[in-house]
Amino acid sequence: MQLSRSAQLRAPGVAKRVSRARVAVVKAAKTADGPRVAIVGITGAVGQEFLTVLKERNFPYSSIKMLASARSAGKKQEFEGVSYTVEELTENSFNDVDIALFSAGGSISKKLGPVAAKAGAIVVDNSSAFRMTEGVPLIIPEVNPEAMSHIKIGKGGAIIANPNCSTIIALMAVTPLDRVATVKRMVVSTYQAASGAGAAAMEELRQQTRDVLDGKPAQPKIFPQQYAFNLFSHNSAMDVELGYNEEEMKLVKETRKIWGKPDVRITATCVRVPVMRAHAESINLEFEKDISEAQALEALAAFPGVSIINDRTNNRFPTPLDATTKDNVFVGRVRRDISREDKRGLDLFVCGDQIKKGAALNAVQIAELLLK
Amino acid sequence: MQLSRSAQLRAPGVAKRVSRARVAVVKAAKTADGPRVAIVGITGAVGQEFLTVLKERNFPYSSIKMLASARSAGKKQEFEGVSYTVEELTENSFNDVDIALFSAGGSISKKLGPVAAKAGAIVVDNSSAFRMTEGVPLIIPEVNPEAMSHIKIGKGGAIIANPNCSTIIALMAVTPLDRVATVKRMVVSTYQAASGAGAAAMEELRQQTRDVLDGKPAQPKIFPQQYAFNLFSHNSAMDVELGYNEEEMKLVKETRKIWGKPDVRITATCVRVPVMRAHAESINLEFEKDISEAQALEALAAFPGVSIINDRTNNRFPTPLDATTKDNVFVGRVRRDISREDKRGLDLFVCGDQIKKGAALNAVQIAELLLK
Repeated sequence: MQLSRSAQLRAPGVAKRVSRARVAVVKAAKTADGPRVAIVGITGAVGQEFLTVLKERNFPYSSIKMLASARSAGKKQEFEGVSYTVEELTENSFNDVDIALFSAGGSISKKLGPVAAKAGAIVVDNSSAFRMTEGVPLIIPEVNPEAMSHIKIGKGGAIIANPNCSTIIALMAVTPLDRVATVKRMVVSTYQAASGAGAAAMEELRQQTRDVLDGKPAQPKIFPQQYAFNLFSHNSAMDVELGYNEEEMKLVKETRKIWGKPDVRITATCVRVPVMRAHAESINLEFEKDISEAQALEALAAFPGVSIINDRTNNRFPTPLDATTKDNVFVGRVRRDISREDKRGLDLFVCGDQIKKGAALNAVQIAELLLK
Repeated sequence: MQLSRSAQLRAPGVAKRVSRARVAVVKAAKTADGPRVAIVGITGAVGQEFLTVLKERNFPYSSIKMLASARSAGKKQEFEGVSYTVEELTENSFNDVDIALFSAGGSISKKLGPVAAKAGAIVVDNSSAFRMTEGVPLIIPEVNPEAMSHIKIGKGGAIIANPNCSTIIALMAVTPLDRVATVKRMVVSTYQAASGAGAAAMEELRQQTRDVLDGKPAQPKIFPQQYAFNLFSHNSAMDVELGYNEEEMKLVKETRKIWGKPDVRITATCVRVPVMRAHAESINLEFEKDISEAQALEALAAFPGVSIINDRTNNRFPTPLDATTKDNVFVGRVRRDISREDKRGLDLFVCGDQIKKGAALNAVQIAELLLK
């Protein structure tokens, strides 16, 4: 599917609209035999990031359709030197679509995901609507690509679910260790960025911070608590009986499904911190077998999509800013758990961009698997 | 030692300098038979908070001496309607002092703490200099007051150590649970405020945040990493062999000493977050015996200095802002650990003001124990 640059320039529709000067900086991937792509929720933070990632990865597509609610229909969306018109999302949007990247919230996915699949599209859904549905693969391409190997373009529509951001970021770091020594139990505490609640939440953090620095009261709108210079328990719905919120239960249930290990034991405390777009997670692990720090670092280094920052001498470990806008998940603070007398415990600290690997990048990687 | 307001007004030295109008709003605690107090490091964040706490708690003192480095000597310090002159800290500063509240860093404590004790003062030291020294009591007044019961004003000098902020805040929440079901193991992840690194660190957070919001680059000075909208592994010195930093090892070692339980198992990951002055901690606990959520909440409610915010229905739990400038430590997210099949695990989330209960308040409470 990869075309040379000159072949790309010959692709229909591109040469006509794009000047030579602009093409020089454009990694155009429009290609006649590529899949027909639709983006559902193009005006959102993740929708916009889909475009960034498609471009960065030179994703080959033959056409791309920008879909959003009626409110945004008619707006212009530039992409790779072409000006697209945002179309209203309807039940008829998917008749000429091979891959539909959905990120417009759970209720739209629930309503239109099955419609798109019935029309023949393969839906890669970034919402939580179908993640735990039996028969819907829940995929991190580096972790469990085999779970979607039966789904192929042109062989009928389907839905594939993108896991929750916290799950993806945790499992990118923990899966290579699980393969060495088998994870028995995980204790996770998260430090989650504003972006998980969308672009408006990022703007709320900026605005509140400005106000507080100016001596004005913070005005919480999206979050119930002051966000500037503060942190709070994740604002997802809580299971009043159990005392866990949805974000925490996603980490538990999605990990079990992705790993195919219904018995793996996980507890999590999910916390929103005043950081823009990369999550951090402090993870304590118990293994079935012995694992040394050296073995852990070796397994992490060999795993695609993982970068290690683990410099004890200079006290340099991953931060959210290291991960911001980066594809890789960053792992550090890898150490033997001193609260255990055996060699079956490790602590680590992980950072990953919530919008990229936590959402748009993982979804586009799933789309790439479909091209293989 | 508690005097009535009218008795306080008659106390020598007060009536002369303070007008009646001002006295009305001053909780003057100056009293002829109170201890002679010295504050070492009066210009620092904790030094200033000592004054706030002494005033709030109506601490009875007969005299108060404001000590700082030569650089600050001669400056004026207002307190309870009286203008004091800051004196230079020397080896001769302690000849007429009963209680010396030290918060001027470890090296000054190491040098002058023993000098003050030799001169007959009881040193309450907020640094880490003597915390692990055998024979030096390490005290949280609500937790282990008995460990300092042999120390009395006028019976010779001594050193009492104030634990590290993260230890105090964790143990205020965990001690009542330990008394019910005996803690076997703790997994702690912290969310630590700027104030732990002093007033200049708080200003660095403010300035960097302003710069970043204005589109300028952040200029890290005190911390090696950008602090604005970022977080990073605690900047204390790291044991390169173990992979734990000093802040984490303080939590391990100080807990063992305070509880008198050399075998209690603890692992910690300490992280600095962009919050001003209250720490948060996510704590996972394993107990020797069964403990229910109801038992845990009952024990927490009965423990002095603990407030519970644990409203699952409204998703309302402690935040650093709830704890800011407050005496109490706030506990919430109290729940059975679902990663365990038995009834011997709990998760909780704790917030406490780093400058108050984490430092100045705990030290003044130690001083109050000396008055009993």
